[in-house]
Formats: sequence, C-alpha cells, structure tokens
Amino acid sequence: MPATQTELAWHAGASRIRRKIMTDSSFRASETAVEQTINVPRTAQEAILQVVMANRILSNEGILDALGHVSVRNPVNTNTFFQARSISPFEVTPEDILEIDLDGNVVTQTTLKPYGERIIHGAILKARPEMNAVFHGHFAAVIPFSVTNTPIRPVTHVGSFLYQGVPIYDDYEPGDGMLIRTKHEGERIAKHLGQHRVHLLRGHGCDIVAENLLRLVASALHLRDNATIQWQTLLSGKEMKYLSPEEAKTAMEIALFGASPIDRMWGYWVARVKRNMPDMKDWK
Amino acid sequence: MPATQTELAWHAGASRIRRKIMTDSSFRASETAVEQTINVPRTAQEAILQVVMANRILSNEGILDALGHVSVRNPVNTNTFFQARSISPFEVTPEDILEIDLDGNVVTQTTLKPYGERIIHGAILKARPEMNAVFHGHFAAVIPFSVTNTPIRPVTHVGSFLYQGVPIYDDYEPGDGMLIRTKHEGERIAKHLGQHRVHLLRGHGCDIVAENLLRLVASALHLRDNATIQWQTLLSGKEMKYLSPEEAKTAMEIALFGASPIDRMWGYWVARVKRNMPDMKDWK
Amino acid sequence: MPATQTELAWHAGASRIRRKIMTDSSFRASETAVEQTINVPRTAQEAILQVVMANRILSNEGILDALGHVSVRNPVNTNTFFQARSISPFEVTPEDILEIDLDGNVVTQTTLKPYGERIIHGAILKARPEMNAVFHGHFAAVIPFSVTNTPIRPVTHVGSFLYQGVPIYDDYEPGDGMLIRTKHEGERIAKHLGQHRVHLLRGHGCDIVAENLLRLVASALHLRDNATIQWQTLLSGKEMKYLSPEEAKTAMEIALFGASPIDRMWGYWVARVKRNMPDMKDWK
Amino acid sequence: MPATQTELAWHAGASRIRRKIMTDSSFRASETAVEQTINVPRTAQEAILQVVMANRILSNEGILDALGHVSVRNPVNTNTFFQARSISPFEVTPEDILEIDLDGNVVTQTTLKPYGERIIHGAILKARPEMNAVFHGHFAAVIPFSVTNTPIRPVTHVGSFLYQGVPIYDDYEPGDGMLIRTKHEGERIAKHLGQHRVHLLRGHGCDIVAENLLRLVASALHLRDNATIQWQTLLSGKEMKYLSPEEAKTAMEIALFGASPIDRMWGYWVARVKRNMPDMKDWK
Repeated sequence: MPATQTELAWHAGASRIRRKIMTDSSFRASETAVEQTINVPRTAQEAILQVVMANRILSNEGILDALGHVSVRNPVNTNTFFQARSISPFEVTPEDILEIDLDGNVVTQTTLKPYGERIIHGAILKARPEMNAVFHGHFAAVIPFSVTNTPIRPVTHVGSFLYQGVPIYDDYEPGDGMLIRTKHEGERIAKHLGQHRVHLLRGHGCDIVAENLLRLVASALHLRDNATIQWQTLLSGKEMKYLSPEEAKTAMEIALFGASPIDRMWGYWVARVKRNMPDMKDWK
Repeated sequence: MPATQTELAWHAGASRIRRKIMTDSSFRASETAVEQTINVPRTAQEAILQVVMANRILSNEGILDALGHVSVRNPVNTNTFFQARSISPFEVTPEDILEIDLDGNVVTQTTLKPYGERIIHGAILKARPEMNAVFHGHFAAVIPFSVTNTPIRPVTHVGSFLYQGVPIYDDYEPGDGMLIRTKHEGERIAKHLGQHRVHLLRGHGCDIVAENLLRLVASALHLRDNATIQWQTLLSGKEMKYLSPEEAKTAMEIALFGASPIDRMWGYWVARVKRNMPDMKDWK
Repeated sequence: MPATQTELAWHAGASRIRRKIMTDSSFRASETAVEQTINVPRTAQEAILQVVMANRILSNEGILDALGHVSVRNPVNTNTFFQARSISPFEVTPEDILEIDLDGNVVTQTTLKPYGERIIHGAILKARPEMNAVFHGHFAAVIPFSVTNTPIRPVTHVGSFLYQGVPIYDDYEPGDGMLIRTKHEGERIAKHLGQHRVHLLRGHGCDIVAENLLRLVASALHLRDNATIQWQTLLSGKEMKYLSPEEAKTAMEIALFGASPIDRMWGYWVARVKRNMPDMKDWK
Repeated sequence: MPATQTELAWHAGASRIRRKIMTDSSFRASETAVEQTINVPRTAQEAILQVVMANRILSNEGILDALGHVSVRNPVNTNTFFQARSISPFEVTPEDILEIDLDGNVVTQTTLKPYGERIIHGAILKARPEMNAVFHGHFAAVIPFSVTNTPIRPVTHVGSFLYQGVPIYDDYEPGDGMLIRTKHEGERIAKHLGQHRVHLLRGHGCDIVAENLLRLVASALHLRDNATIQWQTLLSGKEMKYLSPEEAKTAMEIALFGASPIDRMWGYWVARVKRNMPDMKDWK
C-alpha cells in the first residue's frame, strides 16, 4: 500500500494538507512496513480544526454524549495539547479549544473553564511520546466488561487493535467521585495504561491513545462495536474464536489503520457530520 | 469546585439567570460540602420555561413518548407546581403549562385538561419539601427489574444517585388500571418512595424526585442507562462489582450532580433540542 | 372519564371531527362503563385520510418497513374497507387508497395493484363485525415467541390488551411462501384469531384487530414493546410477574384505550409524522 | 403473479426501464415458475445509476458504514462489473463508479483508487455466471455466528433465501490482515461460496451474491434481520422451529424475491434515500 502519485491524486478534492509519513513507531515490530498517507495536522491551527471535527464525529456517531473528551498533541510544541473547554463534544467550535500543558495547566489566556479530567490527557501524552491523541469516554458497551473483570478481546478485524490486551483500572482516589482529577491519579492512570492502546476504568468508562486523531476515532468506534459483539456472543455461552495475534496485528496495520481504510472512514464521518450538523455544513 | 468569577464568566453567553446555591439539603451527610452554580428558576415564568425545556429534552432523548410527565415546584409558592396539560412532552409549549396545587387541583383558570396522574407529583412534592422536581415515566429499561423483583444498583459513576436503593411499588388500587389517580394512592406512593430518589412501579414504570429539573432529567437518563447496562451484565450470570457506597455518594455529588457536569449536560440537551425540534430553534 | 364540554374544549385546535361513542362492544363484560371521545371517521373520506396517517405513523415509529399493511372499515359501507395499493406505508397518500370488499375484490375502478395479503383484512373484518381496523406486520420482536411456541403475556400496563392470549398460527397453505393469499386460508386465519385481539404467524409476523385505527396503532406499538421487554426479561431465567387479569382488563380500558391516553398518543404520533415527513408537514 | 398490462400500468410513474424476465436460473428446481417484472438495467449507464442507488440504500439502512462495498455486472459486457472507487457508500455518486474486469483490473481510464477487496467481486462473478450482483460487508449481526461456528438458518419468511446454508470461511491468507486481496484468495472465496447465496467470513463479515441489485440489497437487509432474531432466540436456550425447505424455497421465490415485494422494497428504500440524503432529493 505505497503512497504514490495516484494515491495523492484521488485526494485532489480534499482541502486538508496530507503528508507521507513512515509507519508509526508502535509498528516497529511489524514485518510489514507500511507507508501511510493520511491527514495529519502540521500546524497548531490544523490540529485545532481537526480536534473540533473529532469532537463532532464522536458526538454524531453516538460515542460521546455530554461527558467525555478528546485531545490532540500540539504538532509544533509536543509539551502542550489541544482540547475543548468544558462543553459537550456536540457543541465544540474552534473558539472553544484550549491549549493545555502536560501537567494540566491551561496555557491559553482565557477565562474559559477546562474539563476536570484533562489530567488524564496530559498524563498519557507525557508517558507516551510516540502517541498524539487521547480519548476518554463512557459508552455503555465497555461497562459490563469493566464490572465483571472480563477481558475485551478482538472478535472482528476492526477490533484487531485490542489484541495486546485491555487492562481494567480499579485504583480510584477515595472520595473523588471516581473521577481522575489529581496529578497523582493521572500518573497512576498513565502507568496502568502502560504500552496498551486502551484500558477500562471500572464502573466508569475507558481511555484510548493513538498516533493521531483518525486512528483514535476509529479506535473508539471499533472498541464499542467489538465490545458489543463480544458481549452478545458471550451471553450464548458458546466457545468463541478470537483473532490470533498475527491476524490481529496485520489486520490492525492493514485493514484498520492502513491509509486506505482510515482515510475512507474519516471521509465518511466528516460527510455525516456535514449532513447532520447544520453549522458544519460548509466546513472545509 | 467553588463558584468563582471564572465559572460565571464562561456562562456569559447563557441567557438564563444563575445563582450560587449551597449544597442541597439531601447532601447534609456529605463530607465534601459543594457549592453549586446552576440554572435554577427564581420566578414562576422561569420555572415554566424550564419545565417546557425539560419536556422537550425528555422527548428528544427518547426517555418519554406520548405518556409520562414531568413537573417543577413553583419557586414563589411552594404549595403549587407547574406541569403540562394532557399532551405529549414532544409537543409542550409555555401555553400548555398549568399551575396545580399539591392536592392535584388545577389553579390556573382554564378548560385545559390536566394529566390524570398529576396526583403523583403533588403527593411527592408534599412529602419531600427539600425537592422541587418530579418525573413519572415508563421507559422499557426499568420494567424487567420491576417484574422480577430485582434491585437496581449503580454499576456506573453516572448511575451513582441510585445507591440508596430503588424500592419496587406493588400496591395498586384495584380496578384503576394500574394508574395512580386517587389522593389515597398518591399518599401511598409518596410513602413508598420515602427518602429515596427513585422507585419503580411494578409492570408500569418509575417515579423520580430531585432538587431541580437539571438533576431530575440527568436522573431519568442515567436511570435508563444504568438499568440497561445492569440488565445486560446480569444476563451473563457473572458476578458484578457495584459502586461502593462511598464511591456512589461522591460520584453523585461531584461527577453527576456537580455544577460542572450538570451544566454541561443541560447545555448539551438544549443544543440537541434546538437542532432537532424546528419550533425550538430560536429558544432563548 | 366522562366526555364533558371540557374534554371537547381542549380539542378546539384539532381539525378532525370527534364523536361521543359508547364503550366498544368488546368491553361488554367490563364493570367500568367508559364513555369515550375519540377521533373516529364518519365518512369514507375521513376514513381514507385516517388510514393514510396510520400508514405514516406505523412507518415513522419503525413498526412497518416496506412490507406489512393496515386497513380500516368503510364507515358508510360495513362490507368494504380501505387500504393502500401495493406500496410501502412510508409512501402512502390518499391517491393510493383502494376500496376493497370483504372477499378481497377491489371495488375502486383502477388499475392500481392491491396487496396480495388483503385477504387477511377482509376475512378478519368479516368475522369480527364489532371491529373496524386490521394490522398485518412482521416486526422482529414477535418472531422469537412465534418460533419457540412461547406465549406473549402482558408485563406492562400498556401491554395489557394482550391479556386474553396471543395464539400462534402455524397452518400455512403448502407452497404459497408462508403468505396468506387464498380465501380458504383467510378463513383459517380469521378462525384462528377468534375473539383475540392479536395472534402471531409462526416465522412470519402478526395480525392485530381493533375497534378503530387509534387503538390499532397503539396495539401494534405496544405489542412490540411488551414483546421486547418480555423477551429481555425471559432471557434472565428469573420468575416474572405478569399483570393479573383484572389489572390487565382495567389497564386496557383506562390506561391504554381510554379517551385521554389514546388521544394523547395519536396527537404525538401525528406531530412526529409532521416533523419527520416533509410532505406531511401541512397535513390538516 | 404473471406480468400483465396491469402490473406495468401501476408503474406508470416510475422512470426506470423495466423488463419482463423469466425466472432466474437459480430457481430451476422450483415447481412454481414465476415470471417477474422488475427494475433490471439494460445499459451500462443504467447499471451505474442503480449501483449508486444501492450504495446509498445500504448506507441509509445502516447495513454499510465506511467499509464494505457492492457491485453489479455490466449488462453489455459480462466480463466487467461496476463498483465505486475507494470511498464510503454514503458518498458514492455516478462519477465515483469504476468499470473493473473479473480479475480486478480497473478498465476505466482514471487515477481514482479502487477498493482493495474488489477481488472478491470479480472472483464471485466469474464463478457464478447466472448472478449479477455482489455484496461484501461487516454488519455486527453475523459476527457471533461466524466466531462460534453456528449455522445461520431461516427463522422468518424474509430470511428464507438462507435455506441452502451459510458456510463459514476461515482460510485467510496469513499476514494480509484478514482481507481478501489476492487472486488466489479470491478463488478460494468463490470456491467456498460455491452455489450458496451467502457465506460468512470468520471474524470479518459476509459475502452475498444475487441475480440483481434489488435481490442483493434485500438479501443484505434480511440476512441482518434474520441473524439478529435467530441470535436473540438462541440466547433463550429454547428449541427453535426453522422454516422447512419447502416453506423457505417458496417464501424466497414469492414473498421475498417475487416482483411485487421486491419492487415495493426498492421503492421504499429509494424514497427513504431521497428524504434523508439531500443530494439525492431530485434523483430520477
């Protein structure tokens, strides 16, 4: 799947800047080196616009409601990230995006209020320098696993990115309402996530990390779908065949995170946002 | 989470009056006193507008269909409440709101017909002077619990408000179609609810009470979501870890009913009503 | 719940003709005689308009897709009924309505093609002179009951109308694709339904009969909802408390089919059709 | 169900060309010869327009999201087929359709990028000369069957087309991410499908083949619905009565693929696309 002139050509209509990038560092172990051509922000302004769109997609696809949030690392300052002020993803506009440092301090000169749990995003981005985007949400599909200590495992090719395991965090700060708001707990969260892409928070939700916002949104959607299918299957009591590690690793690299599927997904989600959200109709 | 100038500032765009209020009396036992800044009506007119919006939200979020209803206490006369005439929540406008006393008598001079079950609202508001808003509905998620005598318990941080228990009412007036329409049965309902926030009515639905309409709507949505998740988990036969009482109490106070999440939820629901309901597009 | 001037007054805004009618004959055994004020067609034209709206509601509420159909008896000729030509309920307009006699002959002078299964409607209307509206559909919720020979029983007050039992038909004409298209099989269907309001067709769907289109649509929706809830509950293996016969009978008469709830439901469904279907926006 | 002048007449309003065709060859064994009058493309341009509409329908009905694809054989060159370039079905327009030969070579002079898995479509169309349309998708309902080696069988009359069995493919090319992209694996897929209408791909999705796009889309929707119902029923542990082979065969020929239901379904799906997708509103 090399990035050729042809591949660039069929994006002639797209207005965002695209760059050829080498396979992400998390794929080092892969036998199949994959060049990628995807929509990755180069400037702060591009990152802000992309994180607005990510908010809208996650809302429009039913992954986030009023609560939960998403962030992207500043491409020109790896020590800060962009995230909405404390409003719902459904409503986010570029004016709502704050720049925040990895300790959770708001860098933007503003009186706008940040999310309390921004600490999660900072702590994970600090611990995972190869990653650039973080998701925290509460969709229903993951809760049954989190409260029964049941491992989520890949049952479909698009759930493949889960193959390295999905640990379950259960080490909350007493008396803080199961929220993650202190520097100390942020560090515990980052440590618990470790080198995984996803972990669950017992009775609460999940955190996801990815190389970029496209993969992050794809991970959130397919975590939900894989969890839903796995639970429905598990209810039958039948033995279930999960993806083998090799199937999962190559499916993740090619069928889920490859330039072709990830680009097609993002184009689809954007097109749906533009249809369903009147204020986004003319978004470039 | 103190109410600061900053907190007020980021509401500059909001048109409703907001007031600093002390922690609700129902939180007396809490170790964490929480000041709150939320959208609470001060006048009858404000209460009427807010209960119209609550109707629309509950319809738009799929919590109420043609049946079921919501009410709010009159902030300038604690012996009356506001509630729509007998139409669906989907259709309610300010012109449809009646003022009703706690015995169920319609105070408004009108020929508009009230809901038969307004008696529930009056009886609960009479028995719970610290509360100001009541919900009665029939969403599917609670029925399986009600007909199998299974306790609903919090499995997520946003289901935390259920931690003091959800009793199941099964003491219907014979021959009245399982409706609650007599003064006598209204009193039984209020007595059965007791100091709980929620109880179920066997084979019928649920009643919810809260300090204000924001918390009431949040309770209705999260009761549905918690019940759905709990039932799906229960079908697996796996042992389930519920929130501990301390987790639940602090999660309720901070993560669900705190000023920041409750305000964000309300803003989200209003924004969705304005997008989905053409006649609400320009609602202030 | 007597029909008073007040009750009529709050319908001042409604454009349809309403009449005071005595309790339906199917309620003969009821101890609570109930007068009703509902929207019942008096002329052929009113019946045609109402069956168009019933089609649109059943489509808009997700009860019918491309297949399935609904009919209403001609109020001025009890030997004919009105039903759409062979198109989806989503698309039906007054121009699509055919007049058909109880043997299935199209009375309207037209080349428009009728539904093959119109035979069901004629046969049931012939066998049930006290009834005036018939539904035939295939929604998923009833199929599990039909293929496992499991009785549907009322678990909610709005499923109350099912209390006299829901027999399961399994006597198909060999070689006719499980459709009901012959006079002989129509008679078998009507005989199997007997004095019930609903029966299932194994591996196919259900037939419903009611006094009028309002009750018919309410029956279709609540059959779906009751079946969904009952199946979800049944999967738990827990013992389930159904409505007692007295609870069910009075709930049907008062809480489901009473003038107040049935009128509120119909108003709600119409309002949703007018919002969701552009060509129905200005429907009177 | 003969094709008469009457049948043609009630299509007077339809703008597409219709032809009388004899029963499809796959129905050779049928005792009931059925003439059919359906919307089958005669020219390349007609086929292109119909495959655009099939894409939109499959998106609008929730069968396909960003991934998955559909194709139709070129009616004037049986060695090529039409399929969208690598974009989501939601977005497909006539300009996006490529002509591709049965080995997967893009015939259209273009720099537009095709789907990697076009190889599936070519291989199946080569192996099944009596068929003209292929679907490949990943909807959730089929995955539990595919990972537990559970046969899908018809439980409803519209799932009848599944009666000849639904084998499960599990012979992936190692290291290719569970995708079907090589000529060799395409041949394995076609061989595994054999004379069936549907097979599942373990942990991935399904392939469907049909005589034309109308039957193909109907098959995709009803595969989903039948699988959903069968799994829900199976979870109860109750014995399930499937359609008998004779029931299924005649139901497929008459109730699902007959001219009357298939035409009604297609009309319905098109009407919904035109309502929900603004750019399709005036589609002829």
